[in-house]
Amino acid sequence: MKLGTVELDDGTTTVVVETDSETVVLEGYQDLDALIAAGEDTWRTAAGQALNDGARLNRDEFQWLPPVRRPGKVLCVALNNSANPDRIKSGPDTPAMFTKPSSSLLGHGRSIIVKDMYGRVHPEPELAVVIGRGGADIAVDEALAHVFGYTIINDLTSPTMRGTDTFNYRAIHPAPEEAGGTRYVDSWVSYPARYKGADTFGPLGPWVTTAEDLPDPHALRITCSHNGRIVTDDSTANLRFSVAEVISFASHYLTLEPGDIIAMGTALKASAQGGAVQNVDLVELGGTVEVAIEGIGTLSNPVEKR
Amino acid sequence: MKLGTVELDDGTTTVVVETDSETVVLEGYQDLDALIAAGEDTWRTAAGQALNDGARLNRDEFQWLPPVRRPGKVLCVALNNSANPDRIKSGPDTPAMFTKPSSSLLGHGRSIIVKDMYGRVHPEPELAVVIGRGGADIAVDEALAHVFGYTIINDLTSPTMRGTDTFNYRAIHPAPEEAGGTRYVDSWVSYPARYKGADTFGPLGPWVTTAEDLPDPHALRITCSHNGRIVTDDSTANLRFSVAEVISFASHYLTLEPGDIIAMGTALKASAQGGAVQNVDLVELGGTVEVAIEGIGTLSNPVEKR
Repeated sequence: MKLGTVELDDGTTTVVVETDSETVVLEGYQDLDALIAAGEDTWRTAAGQALNDGARLNRDEFQWLPPVRRPGKVLCVALNNSANPDRIKSGPDTPAMFTKPSSSLLGHGRSIIVKDMYGRVHPEPELAVVIGRGGADIAVDEALAHVFGYTIINDLTSPTMRGTDTFNYRAIHPAPEEAGGTRYVDSWVSYPARYKGADTFGPLGPWVTTAEDLPDPHALRITCSHNGRIVTDDSTANLRFSVAEVISFASHYLTLEPGDIIAMGTALKASAQGGAVQNVDLVELGGTVEVAIEGIGTLSNPVEKR
Repeated sequence: MKLGTVELDDGTTTVVVETDSETVVLEGYQDLDALIAAGEDTWRTAAGQALNDGARLNRDEFQWLPPVRRPGKVLCVALNNSANPDRIKSGPDTPAMFTKPSSSLLGHGRSIIVKDMYGRVHPEPELAVVIGRGGADIAVDEALAHVFGYTIINDLTSPTMRGTDTFNYRAIHPAPEEAGGTRYVDSWVSYPARYKGADTFGPLGPWVTTAEDLPDPHALRITCSHNGRIVTDDSTANLRFSVAEVISFASHYLTLEPGDIIAMGTALKASAQGGAVQNVDLVELGGTVEVAIEGIGTLSNPVEKR
């Protein structure tokens, strides 16, 4: 089943059920945040009832919103692709993660806004997991039971702002030879709020495919296109850490809550004609960027320069 | 005026007004998130009415919660202290920022939970700004009008996990000499979700002092104590970028929303007897950590090891 959140012409918002031919209103919930929080029994009953007798929407009567509008966190896994190992000179053997703020999320069809002061901005196509049942210290073999469903995220990134917000500095460390003393240690640290979290840097959707319709989230073709040309053509089979491994690992540090989003990391494999998302500078090129994942759909956003 | 959020013995939550002698229930709002969203006229009227006739709570009838329980974002400024310049070998001349997830927030008096697998964990005492009126592209001289008030955050940090989640890697950059080509650039990048965002890594409170009671947020003594010993004794006068500068800069990239928290960066100056928060390893030492800011109050949390 596919469930999403839309804005109607009168400015109100509602959950919808998307079928192959129709977009059906699910009454009583203004977004998936609220429906997921209501629990599995409730959403299954409400969705079934909507399919029976819910109002049908015409395509010109609504706009898509991020299916979860204000998740507690959008947790993103970095460098999680099997194409990465030769690129990594040193790094963790566990998932490394950052968060994107909910204010960066954007619905399907809405405009990505870029500005000259952002420098370069490129797309990153990723599978996104939507948490249904929260929890901490979740075991790997229990992890998929916490998944509500899957959607698509375009983890927009500015390598220019990443470079700017990277420090080479002298970190203060304890001095082992002197009680209470300190010493400087040459360190690098980078801060992602701007380069990953600027407004509209998180296209999400169009909807969520519930977990029972995607029993194997690691066998899905994932592509990224710019102006109709396929740049990335990869498979979720190439994720280094699996959905279950990431959920389990993350939950030992950060309690997961219903509606939390986990972005699984960038698909990287070049398409047959070659390509790299790093060359798709949306500030210079504009156009329309699409991320498609088998069994979910296509997330498409035009770029608008301000 | 001081406004906070508490949990009552029956598990319900409510906004309270804190006076010098009393904690008074402000009816009708389950947290400051809701009261701030209701707007300035509403909160002023509701707070005045509470002081007139609200129920008085005994200290043993409630526990403090983070005053804003689920902010859209907790935006934190890095290395924003005038003590820093000699430590920075290269870095931006604008505020560098990361986000902490709302799931990391913790109320005054509640236990910071640490685990051996976190490695070292130290406190970082900071002034926190609470946004009242949202906005984008806010001018510096308009910025303070967007402030609801000020509170205290203890920006707990694990330097061990910071080190683990730092990559030295070959970033993919466009190759300037070849259309569509790429080249590798040796880069460092670090990801803060674990080392800044683990559960209980964001003690916040006890309450918010509204902006009119702190007309100059840059003249406040700020201290950090461990088991009663003052480690840091600094002033918000030593912030490198001011509250207005940070609000303005951030809002040109990330739209600010009512209830958003901005942590202004770590106070660093050692106390008269000397000290550095980096030596206060809460995993090894346990105990109680306190951050006090003049005109706001004292945020105190015991440490519990699991």
